[in-house]
Amino acid sequence: MSHAFAFERVGIVGLGLMGGSLARGLRVLDNGPRIVAFNRHREDAERALADGVIDAVASTAVEAVEGQDLVVYATPLDVVREMMEAHSEGWGDATVTDVAGLKGPLLRDTAELGFAAQFVGSHPMAGGTATGYESSSADLFSGETVFVCGGEADSERIGAVQSMWQSMGARVRPIDADAHDRLMVWASHLPQLISNVVARAMAEAGLSVKDLGPGGRDLTRLAESSPAMWSSLLDEASEENIRAIESVQSGLDVLREALSERSLDEVAELMRTTREWRKEQ
Amino acid sequence: MSHAFAFERVGIVGLGLMGGSLARGLRVLDNGPRIVAFNRHREDAERALADGVIDAVASTAVEAVEGQDLVVYATPLDVVREMMEAHSEGWGDATVTDVAGLKGPLLRDTAELGFAAQFVGSHPMAGGTATGYESSSADLFSGETVFVCGGEADSERIGAVQSMWQSMGARVRPIDADAHDRLMVWASHLPQLISNVVARAMAEAGLSVKDLGPGGRDLTRLAESSPAMWSSLLDEASEENIRAIESVQSGLDVLREALSERSLDEVAELMRTTREWRKEQ
Repeated sequence: MSHAFAFERVGIVGLGLMGGSLARGLRVLDNGPRIVAFNRHREDAERALADGVIDAVASTAVEAVEGQDLVVYATPLDVVREMMEAHSEGWGDATVTDVAGLKGPLLRDTAELGFAAQFVGSHPMAGGTATGYESSSADLFSGETVFVCGGEADSERIGAVQSMWQSMGARVRPIDADAHDRLMVWASHLPQLISNVVARAMAEAGLSVKDLGPGGRDLTRLAESSPAMWSSLLDEASEENIRAIESVQSGLDVLREALSERSLDEVAELMRTTREWRKEQ
Repeated sequence: MSHAFAFERVGIVGLGLMGGSLARGLRVLDNGPRIVAFNRHREDAERALADGVIDAVASTAVEAVEGQDLVVYATPLDVVREMMEAHSEGWGDATVTDVAGLKGPLLRDTAELGFAAQFVGSHPMAGGTATGYESSSADLFSGETVFVCGGEADSERIGAVQSMWQSMGARVRPIDADAHDRLMVWASHLPQLISNVVARAMAEAGLSVKDLGPGGRDLTRLAESSPAMWSSLLDEASEENIRAIESVQSGLDVLREALSERSLDEVAELMRTTREWRKEQ
């Protein structure tokens, strides 16, 4: 498969950590595309222009998506949905993708809009708790997994979106949208919510972050994540999220009972099992 | 305060991650002490001798503790307790310390043995999930907190143990043993157990570690910890551990209810609160 870059003109909506890193990653490619970007806070888009990371600042989101080969929405899920509905007539023949954490709602939306053939959903499993253009970097996606949900899109467009991510060093993983969304509840939403709840318990017990060692810091790191991007993800996937929370609760019941009965062998067995799971690659 | 090294002869029992790192850290000091060490697997002690990290291999634990200025037990809590009972007659005038995760039981044991004046408990909040001499390093303690519980010990001995940790770049935090042990349940045991339980839930849902992004990997990292050191810690502190688990369970109840009622504002409020807690330093 050729890695020649398939898109000459790219429009990015949202120049935060994801959109900014995408622009930077595309910018350092040989024969990279011309990039136009819109950002809600215009200062960051102006800064990206001054940094040479983009070629032009769009004054509106619509302006950023018109006349492009590739349109990328790099905003929270609910904003992607609103914008897609407002913008689709302006896409022309562009391939459209995004970086949100759930893919089913977007594939259904674009099908309803009559643009299923043009939309290829992306979800890069990259980034930490930092947010904003100032945290963006050209190698954010390097070595990380990017899920690609082609759905009903033309296979050429799917291949082109996959190549784009691969050109930035990402490992592309094609997946069905529903399977992706269920997986994310367990792999991404659950760790996020657990980190928040454990941080809450520590705070209520009177601890501060400086009381933690490396392990406690790791476990509560996600509690620093931005609440803004999470609301729409949790709203869409709340039933599977409840199942995941209940699964952890039942694990905690088992553990609590083992500790009250001083069945340390049972606790050790849990630890051995999960240690083996962690070490399998 | 002078940082001149107070101990000329140090005996270390256990050359794993902690004992090995301590030996390495002392070895690189100007005017560092002569170090004798015992390790259950003699090969690692021989390797440390060949590496120049220690000066002599002891054939038995007793041999390592006799005739020293400082004795350090770097083994799991239950092993420290057994050895202290068996060894105390051989300590002479040595100052005795350890690196275990709970301090109350050891202060009570040494008081019963009649050695309260000589025992200064230490707990370095350092290291990750790696174990063994092969993972040890001279800068393991650098920048990390070491709790020091002096109890009834002579103040000169407390000062000398504190200076030893400071000489390796650690931030010493003097603390009452009971306060330390309660703190550790929330700061250290709870994250460990949560990581195991979340890993179990993910495994049961059919996930593997390669399905995780950076956040999910952080949250399940502790599930790789060695079960061996945990049993005695959990056994000693099981009541406070049960309270900590119950606190997380009640947080999960709140979250589950908010998600089933689609009260996303409540979830966002939890996220904002814990984010602020995480960012306070």
